[in-house]
Amino acid sequence: MHTPATLVRGGTSKCWLFHQVHVPAERGELEKLLVAAYGSTDPVELDGVGGATPTTSKAAVVSASPEPGTDIDYLFAQVGIGTGTVEWTSNCGNCATGVALYAVAKGLVPITGDRTRVTMRNINTGAVLEGLVDTTGGLVHDFGEQTVPGTRAGGVAVGLTFLDPAGRTTGHLLPTGQAAQELKVGTADPVLVSMVDAGAPVVLVDARSAARTGSETLEQMRTHTPWLRTVRHTAAPLMGLLEPGQAPGDAVPKVGLVGEPVPYTTTLGEAVAAEDYDVSVRMLTMNAPHPAIGLTSAVAVATAGLLEDSVVFRAAGGPTGDWLRLGTPAGVVAVRCSDLRDGLPGRVTVQRAARLLADARIYVPRTGRAQAA
Amino acid sequence: MHTPATLVRGGTSKCWLFHQVHVPAERGELEKLLVAAYGSTDPVELDGVGGATPTTSKAAVVSASPEPGTDIDYLFAQVGIGTGTVEWTSNCGNCATGVALYAVAKGLVPITGDRTRVTMRNINTGAVLEGLVDTTGGLVHDFGEQTVPGTRAGGVAVGLTFLDPAGRTTGHLLPTGQAAQELKVGTADPVLVSMVDAGAPVVLVDARSAARTGSETLEQMRTHTPWLRTVRHTAAPLMGLLEPGQAPGDAVPKVGLVGEPVPYTTTLGEAVAAEDYDVSVRMLTMNAPHPAIGLTSAVAVATAGLLEDSVVFRAAGGPTGDWLRLGTPAGVVAVRCSDLRDGLPGRVTVQRAARLLADARIYVPRTGRAQAA
Repeated sequence: MHTPATLVRGGTSKCWLFHQVHVPAERGELEKLLVAAYGSTDPVELDGVGGATPTTSKAAVVSASPEPGTDIDYLFAQVGIGTGTVEWTSNCGNCATGVALYAVAKGLVPITGDRTRVTMRNINTGAVLEGLVDTTGGLVHDFGEQTVPGTRAGGVAVGLTFLDPAGRTTGHLLPTGQAAQELKVGTADPVLVSMVDAGAPVVLVDARSAARTGSETLEQMRTHTPWLRTVRHTAAPLMGLLEPGQAPGDAVPKVGLVGEPVPYTTTLGEAVAAEDYDVSVRMLTMNAPHPAIGLTSAVAVATAGLLEDSVVFRAAGGPTGDWLRLGTPAGVVAVRCSDLRDGLPGRVTVQRAARLLADARIYVPRTGRAQAA
Repeated sequence: MHTPATLVRGGTSKCWLFHQVHVPAERGELEKLLVAAYGSTDPVELDGVGGATPTTSKAAVVSASPEPGTDIDYLFAQVGIGTGTVEWTSNCGNCATGVALYAVAKGLVPITGDRTRVTMRNINTGAVLEGLVDTTGGLVHDFGEQTVPGTRAGGVAVGLTFLDPAGRTTGHLLPTGQAAQELKVGTADPVLVSMVDAGAPVVLVDARSAARTGSETLEQMRTHTPWLRTVRHTAAPLMGLLEPGQAPGDAVPKVGLVGEPVPYTTTLGEAVAAEDYDVSVRMLTMNAPHPAIGLTSAVAVATAGLLEDSVVFRAAGGPTGDWLRLGTPAGVVAVRCSDLRDGLPGRVTVQRAARLLADARIYVPRTGRAQAA
């Protein structure tokens, strides 16, 4: 079976995009196809097109949306590395920027002058997003000069806006009703956390309350990963993300440390001063330190920044400007909350870049394991 | 620029294959294309099709051979990760199995019954190889059930034979004229090594003489990597691989530890008894522990096993059968030396598997850096 697919880079993620017409609609069959195509049963995804890291083992299925006012539906898949399974519970903002560019480049939406708006619905979470793709001159561009923290490579500029992101998964911006609260993790003293649902359900730990800083190196973050995973699993039922008796997964809630800004050096070796940003953030992606920050998490952090008691508000030392600047290992990611109503943002925007890397036909073994033809 | 390419798995390597007609013949221009296509300037090869590990950041350029009796020429490229450069000095046997399957699948050689022989010349080293591809029923197979140590995935069986492999790079099986000798590495006591040129130029360290075992875990090997790199750099000029004043590279000679067989557990969790194999081998690939063994190195180890004084002969405890069984982190790789003349093997064979993963058109930025279109 040869399945058409397009490899895109969206920001700091790589993602294979499949059009719905080429893959099974039934979720179980689709999962089998992705596991086989990626070589997902293997820890290094040797026998397939997977990239063997959480940020390069992603997929999305794209289709024209039946929803009025929405151009594109996409279903995001976090393809497991060595597990032979797919996580279906989260969204990926980086991939959404790739979806927006793909929609324009493949003619799924008409080009409208120098910028083309693509309205997208994420099937996993119900999130609605708007991608504003640079189509200068009324043309699709294969390459561009827009960069994002975490890579020096340029891409086509895509402004990504999350529309009314609060409460999409749980029904509430604050699933526990509190902007911040103490959380007892294992047998240690409680730590201060904010559990918010905006962009994605996220649990943010006040780093200082956990004897950490929020400005840890990726190496240091690896030693904190098991503990943060316990925080995730402790928060999940409190956020209403688990049915009773269900085992917690590793995709939601997202989890990370938040701290005060301090001078640090990015993974690309650039010096960042404390005054260059507002809060330090160190997130996990699945069970590994995120090299930058997932955009859905960035939305949650920025939205939490609007709430007076939250761990983000405290770390930032009070209210910030229009843009909240997040200090991540890869560099500073700026997030803009606008169109505020009752304290909730109607629009949360990040400036990103995307690039098509390859159009392919993937040889997919007919089951999760390779077979004789 | 959209460049056609095919992603193959050959054994435990992933490699993009380009046909010569689609890429520049001039080496500098070709290097620019590969660097741009792979995103090679970035340490995680985010902006391209590279796999960001030494065994998944490989390429080869394939063409019909003008040489009588040879079907296919291929030029191997070890695409640097984060360097923006390509190493051109080595061959890759795993990739050669992929080249053989590709040659059959793309119709570059005629199918001849249940097995199809593909004679290949490696442009980098002058090595001549024979791939015997399973074409049961006179058909090309997309999938197969043959496995190799290091992955549970099946592929199409490809028997790979190196023809007259001794001395291809330096002119001599033993570039220093000795089957084993003491080598002073840095300021420490000398260690016992064999420097052999068969398949590839390789320096093999008697693990015991270096207070090591040859059965180290990959984690342990990471701590030995800087030292082994020093061994490589010390051996390179003695093997005639460096012009005076030239800085040593990381592709040749290949370097590794050889020791006696002991019980161990493979990276896939399988138990291996000491009697299941003849010698322990732990190699580097570029500057990282090899998860298994490069086939060109396997040829060197097997050929050294024929030499009474070599570190391989000593570790094996004397002569072995037709097949020398190498205990690698991923499992046991068996190598057969045959057609012996004057003690040199005319044929060195390994049983491997390969699979086509994807046919693609790669969007290649026009220089090493992405550009506006």
